[in-house]
Amino acid sequence: MGVVVNLGDGKREAPSIKQLIDLTATDMARVNELILARAGSDVEMIPEVANHLISSGGKRLRPMVTLAAAQMFGYEGDGHVKLAMSVEFMHTATLLHDDVVDESDLRRGRKTARTIWGNQASVLVGDFLLGQAFRMMVDVGSLEALDILSTAASIIAEGEVMQLAAAKNLETTEDEHFAVIKAKTAALFSAAAEVGPVIAGASRADRAALRSYGMNLGLAFQLIDDALDYGGSAKDLGKNVGDDFREGKVTLPVILAYRRGTSAERAFWKEAIEEHRVDDAGLEKAIGLMTRYGAIADTISRARHFGEIARDALAPLEPTPQKAALIDVIDFCISRVN
Amino acid sequence: MGVVVNLGDGKREAPSIKQLIDLTATDMARVNELILARAGSDVEMIPEVANHLISSGGKRLRPMVTLAAAQMFGYEGDGHVKLAMSVEFMHTATLLHDDVVDESDLRRGRKTARTIWGNQASVLVGDFLLGQAFRMMVDVGSLEALDILSTAASIIAEGEVMQLAAAKNLETTEDEHFAVIKAKTAALFSAAAEVGPVIAGASRADRAALRSYGMNLGLAFQLIDDALDYGGSAKDLGKNVGDDFREGKVTLPVILAYRRGTSAERAFWKEAIEEHRVDDAGLEKAIGLMTRYGAIADTISRARHFGEIARDALAPLEPTPQKAALIDVIDFCISRVN
Repeated sequence: MGVVVNLGDGKREAPSIKQLIDLTATDMARVNELILARAGSDVEMIPEVANHLISSGGKRLRPMVTLAAAQMFGYEGDGHVKLAMSVEFMHTATLLHDDVVDESDLRRGRKTARTIWGNQASVLVGDFLLGQAFRMMVDVGSLEALDILSTAASIIAEGEVMQLAAAKNLETTEDEHFAVIKAKTAALFSAAAEVGPVIAGASRADRAALRSYGMNLGLAFQLIDDALDYGGSAKDLGKNVGDDFREGKVTLPVILAYRRGTSAERAFWKEAIEEHRVDDAGLEKAIGLMTRYGAIADTISRARHFGEIARDALAPLEPTPQKAALIDVIDFCISRVN
Repeated sequence: MGVVVNLGDGKREAPSIKQLIDLTATDMARVNELILARAGSDVEMIPEVANHLISSGGKRLRPMVTLAAAQMFGYEGDGHVKLAMSVEFMHTATLLHDDVVDESDLRRGRKTARTIWGNQASVLVGDFLLGQAFRMMVDVGSLEALDILSTAASIIAEGEVMQLAAAKNLETTEDEHFAVIKAKTAALFSAAAEVGPVIAGASRADRAALRSYGMNLGLAFQLIDDALDYGGSAKDLGKNVGDDFREGKVTLPVILAYRRGTSAERAFWKEAIEEHRVDDAGLEKAIGLMTRYGAIADTISRARHFGEIARDALAPLEPTPQKAALIDVIDFCISRVN
């Protein structure tokens, strides 16, 4: 994890999500129990595949956001725990299907489920987890929360198809790319944040604030992830520098370097991404071009832009430990790059 | 389609679903409109892939069952139309994922979506349709219907994983096999039938009757499908005789022929199914063994057994055109075999 030193006001601790973890620890213990219970099935292969991913050490940022957002508005009950589980299952289902779609062999530094149990099991266990997510939402009984999360499910899939259709298309504009990551990543963060105030019976303005916070946090999160793939420390990434490049993914650093390059450089990108001719020398050249054109730095600055919007979304809300913790999440996400 | 002549009381028309089609025609027109609208997306590939399957001429039995089951209890409103659409989308999503899991090239006599657009698009468009199905259910606003259909979604996926885990296992018992088809096929028929009385506010007994009708109809339907694969007229099947055999699927005709055979014959089955050595001579031999041991005839008689249970499930209900139409569905399903 990178350290951001704010030179303006002297030494400062690295941003962390410690406060979020502390505030949600009791609830997260219940979320984790529910996760284990609901990933269970008499069909042996289901808990095997599900637990492989569930136990792989993701930060569980999304469910923590749901919990904090509900606490923030004084929610009492156990609906937030159930919705947090649903959010995590939706995320896990997406990862299982993503790995199949991307033909990925590694996720968070471990073999993907599909390399161990095959594509078939990954598709079907993903479907099972999605079904379990919906059952749990139904159990909470909030039609508004159901509406928000089921809409997010459609939008995520839509975003994944957009990404598939745009795959290897270097002419993708920055706006088109934002539309993709908004759907495939940010929509779930947004829904995760919004269902908190929804079940707490918060005002429309408060719901809108959390929805906007989640959406912009999600955008920042994805952009930083994409920047990290071309540099920074990889220990927080669970993948190696250059994985996106090797898979021919058109992320923002690539889009910016391609658009800003000379025609000879664009020919290099076409060969690498579209014809998939990549090796270590190619990766080095790619990072060199990105550096020359400020593509990584500007990806980070775009992320900061969304991070600022997320922060301002929460600005009108009363100061609470939860609000502070959610703002920390923004800083933490962005601080992951050096 | 085969013709069942009831010799007992003279000439009788072939069972058909004409009455069901007539009773639900107006509502089905609205279901079909909704299907087209909700399969739409600005992401071009989504309606392309979805409409490929949607327009492929399935009978839409499941949504018609939902509509008739709601009409039967005097439901007034448009919830049944929306739930019928949800049921059909859940089914379509399952087919898209199934084709990926089974690596199928043909479905209903046409190329599968995965052979045209790839596995990736099939997985993701399936996810999209499932999301749209849930959004539509949420729109209806019945938490009970949501509970029934989301539970079915989990169970279907569980059944598919069971099938995957048992794939090519000739030692599968008949009971284990019933558990698989109950989950992967019958659960959706059961949910489709039950949500009708649920939104109509019918009694618990009436709900249970329709649930049981759907479950047993689904079992009969699947068994007849499996029998048809080894004989009967294929024009209603959309696939060729022997497709299951060529794919090495362990269906009930195989299970019965295997269990009843000599050890030499079991060696033949192992080679064909487990080692996947199949050719036209093999198929001929397989059908010969099934005939010798009555495996196809007994698969049909098992189907009739479940058909009878489905009929008795509806027995206590008042006579209505809808009840008669739903009983016709049982006869129709079974009459598909000669």
